[in-house]
Order: sequence, then C-alpha cells, then structure tokens
Amino acid sequence: HFIQKRLFTVSHLSASASGFRINADRLAETLHHTCQWGAAHRYGDGPTETGMARLALSDDDAQVRRWFAEETQKLGCSLVVDQMGNMFANKRGSAPESTPMIAMGSHLDTQPRGGRYDGILGVVAAVEVMRTLAENGHKTHHNVGIVNWTNEEGARFPKSMMASGVWAGKIPLEDAYSLPDIMDPSTTVKSELQRLGYIGDVACSSTGYLLKAHFELHIEQGPILEQTGKRIGVVQGGQGYRWFTITVTGRDAHTGTTPLNNRSDPLLAAAKMIASSNYVAKELNALASTGVIKIPQNSSPNTIPSQVTFTLDIRHPEDAVLNVVENRIFESFEAIAKKDGRGVQFNWTLDTDSPATLFDPDCIKMVAKAATDLLGEEGWQYITSGAGHDSINTSSQCPTTMIFVPCKDGVSHHPEEYCSPEDCAIGTQTLLESVLNYDKL
Amino acid sequence: HFIQKRLFTVSHLSASASGFRINADRLAETLHHTCQWGAAHRYGDGPTETGMARLALSDDDAQVRRWFAEETQKLGCSLVVDQMGNMFANKRGSAPESTPMIAMGSHLDTQPRGGRYDGILGVVAAVEVMRTLAENGHKTHHNVGIVNWTNEEGARFPKSMMASGVWAGKIPLEDAYSLPDIMDPSTTVKSELQRLGYIGDVACSSTGYLLKAHFELHIEQGPILEQTGKRIGVVQGGQGYRWFTITVTGRDAHTGTTPLNNRSDPLLAAAKMIASSNYVAKELNALASTGVIKIPQNSSPNTIPSQVTFTLDIRHPEDAVLNVVENRIFESFEAIAKKDGRGVQFNWTLDTDSPATLFDPDCIKMVAKAATDLLGEEGWQYITSGAGHDSINTSSQCPTTMIFVPCKDGVSHHPEEYCSPEDCAIGTQTLLESVLNYDKL
Ligand SMILES: NC(=O)NCCC(=O)O
Ligand SMILES: NC(=O)NCCC(=O)O
Repeated sequence: HFIQKRLFTVSHLSASASGFRINADRLAETLHHTCQWGAAHRYGDGPTETGMARLALSDDDAQVRRWFAEETQKLGCSLVVDQMGNMFANKRGSAPESTPMIAMGSHLDTQPRGGRYDGILGVVAAVEVMRTLAENGHKTHHNVGIVNWTNEEGARFPKSMMASGVWAGKIPLEDAYSLPDIMDPSTTVKSELQRLGYIGDVACSSTGYLLKAHFELHIEQGPILEQTGKRIGVVQGGQGYRWFTITVTGRDAHTGTTPLNNRSDPLLAAAKMIASSNYVAKELNALASTGVIKIPQNSSPNTIPSQVTFTLDIRHPEDAVLNVVENRIFESFEAIAKKDGRGVQFNWTLDTDSPATLFDPDCIKMVAKAATDLLGEEGWQYITSGAGHDSINTSSQCPTTMIFVPCKDGVSHHPEEYCSPEDCAIGTQTLLESVLNYDKL
Repeated sequence: HFIQKRLFTVSHLSASASGFRINADRLAETLHHTCQWGAAHRYGDGPTETGMARLALSDDDAQVRRWFAEETQKLGCSLVVDQMGNMFANKRGSAPESTPMIAMGSHLDTQPRGGRYDGILGVVAAVEVMRTLAENGHKTHHNVGIVNWTNEEGARFPKSMMASGVWAGKIPLEDAYSLPDIMDPSTTVKSELQRLGYIGDVACSSTGYLLKAHFELHIEQGPILEQTGKRIGVVQGGQGYRWFTITVTGRDAHTGTTPLNNRSDPLLAAAKMIASSNYVAKELNALASTGVIKIPQNSSPNTIPSQVTFTLDIRHPEDAVLNVVENRIFESFEAIAKKDGRGVQFNWTLDTDSPATLFDPDCIKMVAKAATDLLGEEGWQYITSGAGHDSINTSSQCPTTMIFVPCKDGVSHHPEEYCSPEDCAIGTQTLLESVLNYDKL
C-alpha cells in the first residue's frame, strides 16, 4: 500500500447508473504498482513522487507488458498479441464468440521524461473496469476487453501512435518495423520486438483483430478542464498535426578564420528556422515546436558543424490551416537556407501525419450520458484533443471516442504530471458506464 | 613512400641564406606517416586523402607522442615532459647548458573532424629543421628545440591552447586539470594525463621550462594568402577571442497541448540567441559562431526540452570592439529570455579568453628577412591570425612570432584541409632560416 488510503466519495457525484462502483483505492494502487517499471526523475520525497521513463519496447516496457498479460488472464480474458506487439485482452460476453469486442485502449509506454498518467491511466482504468465487472458477476452482451497499443508516444521510435497506425492501415507494417531508435540508429522497432519476443502471429490490421468500438480514458494534458472546473471532457475529436525531421547541411569551417560571408553554417540556419516556425505558428494561431536538435557527435566549439538535424511538430484543429502553416514554414526555410554566407542545403521527411479527426457521434453520446448521470449537466464539457492518441487511429476503423480528466496545471510530458486519485476514479467510473451504455445500444 | 616524389624546386625561390636545404620529400612523408595515428573521414581514394580525428590525450595522441619522443631523441635531443604533458625536445648549442632554448612549437592534437596540417605541420616541420641541421653538422649558438603543446584545439576539453596557457600563467593548473571531456563529463584532463602517463615532474610554467623565443609554422586556416597569391604570411599578432557556454533552462511541456504563451521553451530561446549573436557580429564586423548545441539525452519530438546548452565563440582584432560585441550579445540574450511565453532562465561561463596580441618585433624581423631572402619582397606579406595559437600564449613570456602558409580554399577544421607539399616546404625552409637568423642575433 504505497498511496494513502482514500475513499471514493466525491460529494457531487451521483449514484452510478449501472449500480457498479469502481474501487478508487485499488485503481490508484494498481497504477502506481505498474510504475515500478520505469520510474525515474524523482521530484519529491513521497513514494510516488517520480516521473517515468518507460520507452516503447525497452526492458521496462516488457516487464509491464508481462504484468498486463497476467492480470488480464486472471480476469478470464484471452490474450492476443499481433505483429506489432499490440496486446488485445478479450473477455467473452453473451454474444457469439466471433462478435468483435468493445475495447478500452490506451498505452503503457511513456515519454523519456514522462509522468505516471499519460497512457498508463487508460490501461489501468480499463483493468479496474474489468475487475469491477468481474467482482459484480456482470456478463456483458458483447465481448469487452482492453488494448495496450505499442509505441503510442513516438518518443524512442519517432512515429507517434505507431502501432495503432499500422492497425488502422495508415502506416505500412514494414515502415514501422524499420523505424530506427532516434538515439541509436542501429536498433529498430522490429529488432526490439524480436528481442523482447513481442512479434505475434495475428496480422496487425482492423481485419486481423476486429474491434466493435474503442473508448479511451486519458488525462487532458492541457489546461482547459482545470480552468473551467469541469471533471470530465467528452472528446469530440483531435486537432491535426504533422511531424517533420529537417536535415540542414553546410560545411565544416574554422570559427576564427572563416569570414561570415564564406560560411555555409547549418546551425545558424537551423536556429533561424526554429525561430521562424514559431513566428509562423504565432501568426496563424497554430502550434510549432522543436523537441530535438542534433549535431554530429564530433563537434567542437571552434568548428562550424557540417550538419544539423531537428524535429518540427506543427498542429492546428483545421487541416486547411495546417496546410498554410506548413507551406509558410517551408517557404521561410527556403529563404533562410539562401540567406547567410554561401547558404546551406536542407531536406526533410514527414514522419507523422495525423489529420484533424471527428469522433463517433454514438460513442460521444454514450460518454455524455455517462458523464451527465454521474456529474450532472454542469459537471462536464465537450473538448477537442490537442495531442494525438491511439483513438485517433482507431476512429477511422471503428466507432471511437475518448474521456478526458483534468491534470494539474495542464502539465504533461513532464515527470510532475499529476491527476488526483479522485479524478482518476471519476474518469474510470465514466469509462465503465460508457462501455455498458454502448454494450446496451 | 605514400606520396608522389617531388623535388623541392620552386622556380622563384632564391637559394637559402643559410646554405642548408630542408628535404621536402622527407617532410611530406613524415607528416603523412604521423597521420596514421588518428586518420579519419576519408574524402578521396588517395592514401593521404583522409582527415584526422586525433583528440587531445586520446590513445592516438599518445601514439604520436611516442613517435615524437623517439624521433627527437634519435636527433640527440633531451626530452622533458611537464605537468601538463607538454613535450620539450632540446638540442644543445654551444652556449652554456642553462641557456634557454629557441623553440619551434606547435601541437599534434587535432579537431574531431580536422585535417592533416593544423598543428601537425608545425611540429613535423620543426623535426625536419632539426634533421637538416643535424645532417649538415650545424651547431647552433643557443640550444634549439621543439615543443609539442598539449590540447591546443580545445575540441575535446573546451579550453583552446590549454597547456601553453598554463605554461604562460594564464590558466591555473588546477583549472586545466579539472576540465571535463565535452562529450563525457566523467573524464578530465588530469584523469587522461594520468591514464596515458603524461604528467611529468617539471612545473608547467615559463620558469619551470624557460624559452628564449618561440617560432611557429602554421597553415593560415583562412583565405587571405591564397587570394593575394603570397607564399608566406609573416604574422604580426592574433585577434582577440572569447568562448562562452550558455545554458538555457525552461520547462518540459507537451508540444500538442501547451499553448505557446504557457511555455518556457529553452530551445526556441537558444535558437533566437544563436541568430541574434550572428546579427550582432555582422553589425560590428566581428565573428560570432556556435559550434555545439546540446539537449538532454532523453528528449523527444513532442516534448519541449527542459534545458539547452550551446557554445558561443566571438572574435575581433580589437579587444575594445570585442567588449562591445559581448555586451550587445548578452543584452540581446536577456531580452530574448524574457520574450516568449513564460520566459526562460539562462546562465553562462567564460571558457576561453584570449586577448588581441602583438608579436615580438625582433622575431617578426627575423622571419621577414628569411622570407625576403627566399621569396623576394613580393613573395610574402604581413598578416594577423584569426585563430588562436600556442604562440599567442608564449608571446606573453618570450619573444614569439609565427609563419603562415596558404591552405586550399582557406579551409581548416575540416577533413579536406590541404597545404601543398611545396608550400609546406617553403614554410619549413622559412622556419629554419628564421631560427638561424634569431640564433645569430
Ligand atoms: N497523448 C500523447 O501525448 N500522444 C503522443 C502524440 C502527440 O504528440 O500528440
Ligand atoms: N589554430 C587553431 O585552430 N587554434 C584553435 C583555437 C582557435 O579556435 O582559434
């Protein structure tokens, strides 16, 4: 028992519609129990005051996967692992065996400096829902189960929502397999799946493993719910985003003897490009961000480097605006590349392309009903996701929506990411009710 | 014999004043022979068409040091290694033994993506001068010898001209000892000196090992001599320069859910700082360069990093202008740090501070006389060094100057750095004549 015992009593939370009540303590304990694998970045003295570094297909990821397999099998689920290491835990309902399952999905991998809630909450909450249904002896109509999607974060292998992307037919299997580790290009998704024994037999596709619907509980990762004081966000869809890797090539030169106008300086150009992408985003009310910049290992303070690589992440709720953002940014890159000294060369790859997405009206209705039953009309709001999620991918193949809960200061992708045990519990209860509502549809 | 045989016959080169003639083939062969240790970055098919990666106090550096010790001892030199691993090879003249030697000094370490001439030419040319004097049975008046200075480049341990700086009393011994490897902070100058057995007994100071004068042959590393068509630059001094390391601290945040005005983005700030330093330098006709930028190892494309570190190298021939450059740059950094979102913090260290320097008039006269005798009045020019050199440090303790030879396209700190065998030979002959002129002074 490593968190303080706390009863699940939220004053303004009505009786649950189903009559089943998830166990808030068990939920919190389970969540922090799974964080033993990959705990990192301590920020306080408390036993759970660390962040996480559980990169996709690392040894820690393999350990939490073993935990997931054991726990779901204990609950009477059958487990299928597909070619991308996605894990499907399926509990029979009363409908025929071949009927696809209603899935609660999210991911157990984290950012390298991530927190204890992003993705983890969604999977652990799904386990809590299954435990609650099991202990109440409730048999659903449809099969109901859980998906742990591989490499949602795209942090180690730079394609976010990777394996749900393969499942949805958006990313070719071989492209995903050959993705290199961003820090160690000698390692690929495939080599790590093989090393950990996580290449399953089942085709990674929406026909290889059919889903009836997909519900995902997730922290908001932004400041909106906290600012409005709502406990639940019913997610209507996600903003569009694209990731690029830009490689700028110049020429090594001595910093003391090479006149500015004789240089071909890729780091100066990259610096101006990063500043310019921010400027364009600001103008268009969009987002543009660089998370990674790399120079050759053999660099030194008195040599202009020969090459610089950086990532660019652009986002906007409307694809049309995102196109304008992309065009203006790359136009400005063209101008910058010609500008200083002898100019530089650059090229780029599009690593992730996630169009703006609208979720399924039925699923949204089921979540809205669950939230209203639990919190009243005033207790929740509609919201659009700023981040990508596996649900963005599943929504192209099966009815999908998401449930957001607030996180402290809107902080995510940071060790201090935090969602109160109470909010985790409200989200999990909403997840349970939504799935049961959908099951009855 | 891995370079083409070529006779030392330059049509417009007069007979040498001394009557001794250095051996151009032996010089070139010796130079490339020593480049077997640390050869890297092949750019062509020829046996010598590679650059160098012989970082200070690496295993390759230790091997070329062993070669240097053996060759100079074969020439009848006594060898002294001081506390910083500086190597002094000393050949007795007819003056009393205690008389300080006239030194020909440079360095055998290279940049991580360096060439075959920067530093190496100066040491190998000095060996060739000693060989020529020995085979002609010439006994100088003063002791004459060679210095191999440790870590001139400042590439691995980021203080350039490090050990000549300690010798000149500009850098405290303990500061140099504790300098960490820029890529592996667990390794220091002292730990590497110890590992290689290169901490000598003799104090590293201008009294610990006295020098009568210091002459250094070096490639220009810039485009001036090539553009003017002169074969020799008689160096009057060096421009001032300073190196800084700037650390910008922000806060990790999700790139998709964190509004721009909620961010504390150190990479955006660093990018703007790099662009701004370039702008200031351009305005003031100075140089400003960033060679290294680093983010935490655990970074990812969809997370604003928490911290960014970059180097800044500023240069100008006048210290007063350099002060203005520094002040304006750091003022602009203050403004940038406050500008975007919630702002960032930054701090900086001054790693190298090398004031503008004027060389010794007598030494300059001796080189100018040697160059005129060999090439005529039109064959050479005065020049100021853009780069730092060990001679900048020695000049504060003993009469010093340098001899520059042209290098192809002004390129240095690059694998393709090139100085023709003929220019290497002319420079070496000038070095020999300059030392003999000074010996007779
Ligand atoms: N939810 C989340 O952090 N997903 C990763 C993909 C993204 O950067 O939006
Ligand atoms: N000559 C040379 O490259 N010295 C290194 C110090 C500097 O950057 O000027």
